[in-house]
Amino acid sequence: MIPSANDKPLFTPGPLTTSRTVKQAMLRDLGSRDDEFIQTVARIREKLLGLAGVSKAAGYEAILMQGSGTFGIESVISSAIPADGKFLVIINGAYGQRIRRIAEVHKIDCVTIECIENQAPTPEEVNNTLSADPAITHVAIVHCETTSGIINPIEAIGAVVRKHGKVYIVDSMSAFGAVPFDMQASELDYLISSSNKCIEGVPGFSFIICRREALATIEGQARSLSLDLFHQWQGLEANGQFRFTPPTHSILAFEQALDELDGEGGIEGRARRYQQNYHCLRDGMREMGFEEYVPEDLQGYIITSFLFPQHPNFNFDAFYQKLNEKGFVIYPGKVADAECFRIGNIGRLFTSDVGNLLRAIRLILVEMNISMPAESTSL
Amino acid sequence: MIPSANDKPLFTPGPLTTSRTVKQAMLRDLGSRDDEFIQTVARIREKLLGLAGVSKAAGYEAILMQGSGTFGIESVISSAIPADGKFLVIINGAYGQRIRRIAEVHKIDCVTIECIENQAPTPEEVNNTLSADPAITHVAIVHCETTSGIINPIEAIGAVVRKHGKVYIVDSMSAFGAVPFDMQASELDYLISSSNKCIEGVPGFSFIICRREALATIEGQARSLSLDLFHQWQGLEANGQFRFTPPTHSILAFEQALDELDGEGGIEGRARRYQQNYHCLRDGMREMGFEEYVPEDLQGYIITSFLFPQHPNFNFDAFYQKLNEKGFVIYPGKVADAECFRIGNIGRLFTSDVGNLLRAIRLILVEMNISMPAESTSL
Repeated sequence: MIPSANDKPLFTPGPLTTSRTVKQAMLRDLGSRDDEFIQTVARIREKLLGLAGVSKAAGYEAILMQGSGTFGIESVISSAIPADGKFLVIINGAYGQRIRRIAEVHKIDCVTIECIENQAPTPEEVNNTLSADPAITHVAIVHCETTSGIINPIEAIGAVVRKHGKVYIVDSMSAFGAVPFDMQASELDYLISSSNKCIEGVPGFSFIICRREALATIEGQARSLSLDLFHQWQGLEANGQFRFTPPTHSILAFEQALDELDGEGGIEGRARRYQQNYHCLRDGMREMGFEEYVPEDLQGYIITSFLFPQHPNFNFDAFYQKLNEKGFVIYPGKVADAECFRIGNIGRLFTSDVGNLLRAIRLILVEMNISMPAESTSL
Repeated sequence: MIPSANDKPLFTPGPLTTSRTVKQAMLRDLGSRDDEFIQTVARIREKLLGLAGVSKAAGYEAILMQGSGTFGIESVISSAIPADGKFLVIINGAYGQRIRRIAEVHKIDCVTIECIENQAPTPEEVNNTLSADPAITHVAIVHCETTSGIINPIEAIGAVVRKHGKVYIVDSMSAFGAVPFDMQASELDYLISSSNKCIEGVPGFSFIICRREALATIEGQARSLSLDLFHQWQGLEANGQFRFTPPTHSILAFEQALDELDGEGGIEGRARRYQQNYHCLRDGMREMGFEEYVPEDLQGYIITSFLFPQHPNFNFDAFYQKLNEKGFVIYPGKVADAECFRIGNIGRLFTSDVGNLLRAIRLILVEMNISMPAESTSL
């Protein structure tokens, strides 16, 4: 097979389009006990702490976990919450639902605050729930709900969780690396993200950034061997090695991706590019008459849900297929209460890519005989 | 970073040295819902069945699971054995111990047959245990115990397990793809292996080959969301997609690796090369006075444990470090009752590589002032 440099740009929540140099970093075979590999893992762990604005000296740890982001989330939920713990999950999308599902599988006592997918939960609700139920020990929320693209107020909720003295878990899968935040000020105990999101690495592992103080109390609680967060940490600390075979190539790609993130100006630089992508996309889509599902003040610049146009000729499967034929990959919707599709702005994509996508969408609307507002007839 | 084509050959149990073309297959970014990717996964699943000598039509399924081999093992143990099941684990090494450990974490009622690491368990022992304890429902064994390099008699034990009507689980991590066997004749219900062993792919996932009849009975038994084997299968069957982000790049590399396995003459061809590596290694090491830990009739051609030489000047850490400096990666020992180191024959290695390794070992013995038998003084 001849490697193609012409893969379709992925306007998806991940796996994403990555740089050629990130992929080229995988053209090696390092042993998992090799000193060069061990040093790579050590550097990655340190850099992740830096991206979260914390450090080992400040009492934080970074742990890599094999598998996808969900494996990392399950690792935290099934390791951090004791048998007699009680778990509050704040839900406004499929990823919040998934956290609840994990708790259910592990028979963890679980309550929820649920709101509709284009609205954000409020610190007041969380405060009320925690006041009414002091048995709650752990609270989890999703940072950017990839379901809709909404950004949840993790800092304000963090202040409430801290006030009540609970352990705070944030699924920052789609936001970490591109949304500035302060791990310490947000009072996070555990943050989970993955290799193939805003850091722009390839899939293969997730990572957990956490307070050592929280981590130190969870020994023996894990409900799985592979996903035992405490022992994964202890293993990495003991000799820099993974307990079980690490995805060496994904890890090499990730270090390169972290270097390229630095080169782009870190989180702020990356945020700027993604914001440009988002603005370009939103403006272009609005011009064509598309409407967003999430209100503008809650909408992040990671991924956007667009409502299906109210036009009898619109058929999403045909629309998706035509886009695919023109070389663009978007994502179906995932919200329960509205018909949407999603377009991501993350990965190695630029406004020029977004412009190409917009032109393709315009053409397809013409092909599908879907009339557009008068101001957007130019191709 | 400039990708290096000159990485040290890995004489380890994995991650292994892979071909350049396998790694180059990762120079792409495919979406996980992309049709091209879905077709790739479908072809891989079919080819894996073929390598096991079975097919969907014959009632078998192949399932990929994110994470390392241990994740695949845990997926099977924690999904296949019901709450009221009883598990017999046959142990003669660290990987058998690990299976027991997984059962313990999941509070599965578990008994063991244990024997010393350079001896194989016998079908008679298994028969006696199963006769004495009819409550046992599932039996597991490791095919090639990477701890020592011993090959366990999975076929003969399979006949006993079948006679007693138990479910039979084989960890064939280090053997599958290079050791001919007949899944059907060996009466296997579940076989587990991984992407970065004898198929010569890169790490990132494990795979499970199993009888559909066994699989169909396990719905709702899983003790984890991520490692839920039944739903992983159902997801792949429903739309060809993974439930959670797959390691797309590792999977692309794996298809290339499967093609190259075909090109080498399949399992028989690969077995031939590994056997040549093994014979070359064993003969060269014996010439220098090294002795194997496992008796020859039980020794496989995957990986070999060599006893530390009985010489006051031998120090393994120094030996390992010197080999590393000369560009060769071997593995420390792992058996409990003897001091050993291990040298693997698997991965993209040829007798010329083994010859280079042997020359380096000879030089190091001279450097360390370790006298060798008279017949092997030539460098």
